[in-house]
Amino acid sequence: MKKLINRPEDVVTEALQGMAGAHPELIKVSFAPAFIQRADGPVAGKVAVVSGGGSGHEPLHGGFVGLGMLDAAVPGAVFTSPTPDQIQAATVAVDGGAGVLHIVKNYTGDVLNFEMAADLARMEGIEVESVLMDDDVAVEDSLCTAGRRGTGATIVAEKIAGAAAAQGRSLAEVAALCRKVNGQGRSMGVALTSCTVPQSGRPNFTLAEDEMEVGVGIHGEPGRRRVKLETAAGITALLAGPILEDLPFGPGDRVLAIVNGLGGTPLIELYIVYHELARLCAGRGIAIARSLVGTYMTALDMAGCTITLVKMDDELISLWDAPVKTAALRWGI
Amino acid sequence: MKKLINRPEDVVTEALQGMAGAHPELIKVSFAPAFIQRADGPVAGKVAVVSGGGSGHEPLHGGFVGLGMLDAAVPGAVFTSPTPDQIQAATVAVDGGAGVLHIVKNYTGDVLNFEMAADLARMEGIEVESVLMDDDVAVEDSLCTAGRRGTGATIVAEKIAGAAAAQGRSLAEVAALCRKVNGQGRSMGVALTSCTVPQSGRPNFTLAEDEMEVGVGIHGEPGRRRVKLETAAGITALLAGPILEDLPFGPGDRVLAIVNGLGGTPLIELYIVYHELARLCAGRGIAIARSLVGTYMTALDMAGCTITLVKMDDELISLWDAPVKTAALRWGI
Repeated sequence: MKKLINRPEDVVTEALQGMAGAHPELIKVSFAPAFIQRADGPVAGKVAVVSGGGSGHEPLHGGFVGLGMLDAAVPGAVFTSPTPDQIQAATVAVDGGAGVLHIVKNYTGDVLNFEMAADLARMEGIEVESVLMDDDVAVEDSLCTAGRRGTGATIVAEKIAGAAAAQGRSLAEVAALCRKVNGQGRSMGVALTSCTVPQSGRPNFTLAEDEMEVGVGIHGEPGRRRVKLETAAGITALLAGPILEDLPFGPGDRVLAIVNGLGGTPLIELYIVYHELARLCAGRGIAIARSLVGTYMTALDMAGCTITLVKMDDELISLWDAPVKTAALRWGI
Repeated sequence: MKKLINRPEDVVTEALQGMAGAHPELIKVSFAPAFIQRADGPVAGKVAVVSGGGSGHEPLHGGFVGLGMLDAAVPGAVFTSPTPDQIQAATVAVDGGAGVLHIVKNYTGDVLNFEMAADLARMEGIEVESVLMDDDVAVEDSLCTAGRRGTGATIVAEKIAGAAAAQGRSLAEVAALCRKVNGQGRSMGVALTSCTVPQSGRPNFTLAEDEMEVGVGIHGEPGRRRVKLETAAGITALLAGPILEDLPFGPGDRVLAIVNGLGGTPLIELYIVYHELARLCAGRGIAIARSLVGTYMTALDMAGCTITLVKMDDELISLWDAPVKTAALRWGI
């Protein structure tokens, strides 16, 4: 295992310490229980937006805490759901009196623990709404998930919900926008290599030198099929095809297009995939209104990428464009 | 070779096409000869700042083109210097009448080709100054370089020069600030794995499963020594020690600290290294005034990182904080 780490059991805590030190103007970090919150929170009268999940997907979610996006992020151990008490503590810490939205990626542990935390927070008099993200079209009922997995559309949901909350919208409105993003968002990923969880020290799965896993999950869960390596054009078609057909996306649609690296893939390759995706969309009469190309949701050191398309309208575009100031996304401010 | 590419010979052109499509509001791309320039340039009366070098280091340099940083970036083939005619064309394209600064990383091919381009541009009546970056303390006179190599301080030089140019400072002043950054900046890197150039298809060098290359160059050039893998704490000390002793940095100094991923290393590990670096600096009475943790200068898919420290003063901090709007660095706007 070749990683820049100390003891595997300290990875999450030490990374949080690094984040806290690097971004004191943006975030403050609690360690017992562990969560990241906005440095200037809670914001009185504003709906608070909270997300979280296992670590190993950085910058998701901690890199999205700040003005115009998340009020708190709750990191579990690597590829392990955060505990209900962590989520509850984060919820209480950021509540500004207008309620708290939980954005939950659809993995069974996350769903259960966020539900329990929401119940605990409600017992403290905090209004909590939850939105479940299940945008990954690759498979149904995979390892760790009943139904579809939540992946790249979560970034968009967090941005849109954060912007709507910053505008003073109600909890019901913010939650509705978030559900709209999930309803109109579709994703799929590919692994060229496995990833290695620090505490196991061995690759999660194995791929031959000429193989890739199409539809892989962000913890290395199996995808649709294992096939021979293809060109960027071939891979992009394998991912974009099922995405486009699922919603479906069609002529005249405006989309936000995300090409996301899974941790071990450099930016030069992601731009090549984006170029292929733009060609495919243009060929179907789909307009890319906004795009995001980079490494925003990872599976540790996995080489590969995910593609996400979200059907946009004027309101969603305006919320996407709204100011955001976080470690990983920043514009307009 | 596991990469998201089509034909190896098309990697740079297709990545540029992807960049052009993803960032139309920031950049425009010329393809014959190839260079990236600000979408809204040239800016009349402003000193123009140009950098460039071999591709494979993305987002360096193209990701730094935009308001408050570079006016143009000139990408060569992968790990290959851009040609004089490319650099000349970019220089002419962005000249706003106040002269052009070339920021050149110290690799023999880059130095020669930027010199030739500067001469050609001067023959067209454009005032050109050049600053040579040679911040890498690892080795002298390595593969491709006489003297020290230019690495991470280049990012800072581009930001500081871009901010100074945006404030309307003269070519001589902008160049002087850039030389100051180089004079006060020191870097060193480590490779946990090699990288693979698309056109060769094989790793540039080989490292055993328990080995790392301390002081590696951003093209995989040999470093100071090949040693057994260590913890993040051990690796950070191996890199920061020579950096701190070289300038030297001492008690009371304020620094900008960069922990940069080399392309195959995920953010969670970079934050762990940053935490170690912050501890080391604190132990020596060095204050980290600003920091940057992420993937900004890569060696294709190499796993590993570089550390850069730049001694800062009030003026440099103010220029670092000035608004910037590029694909890879964005704040204040």
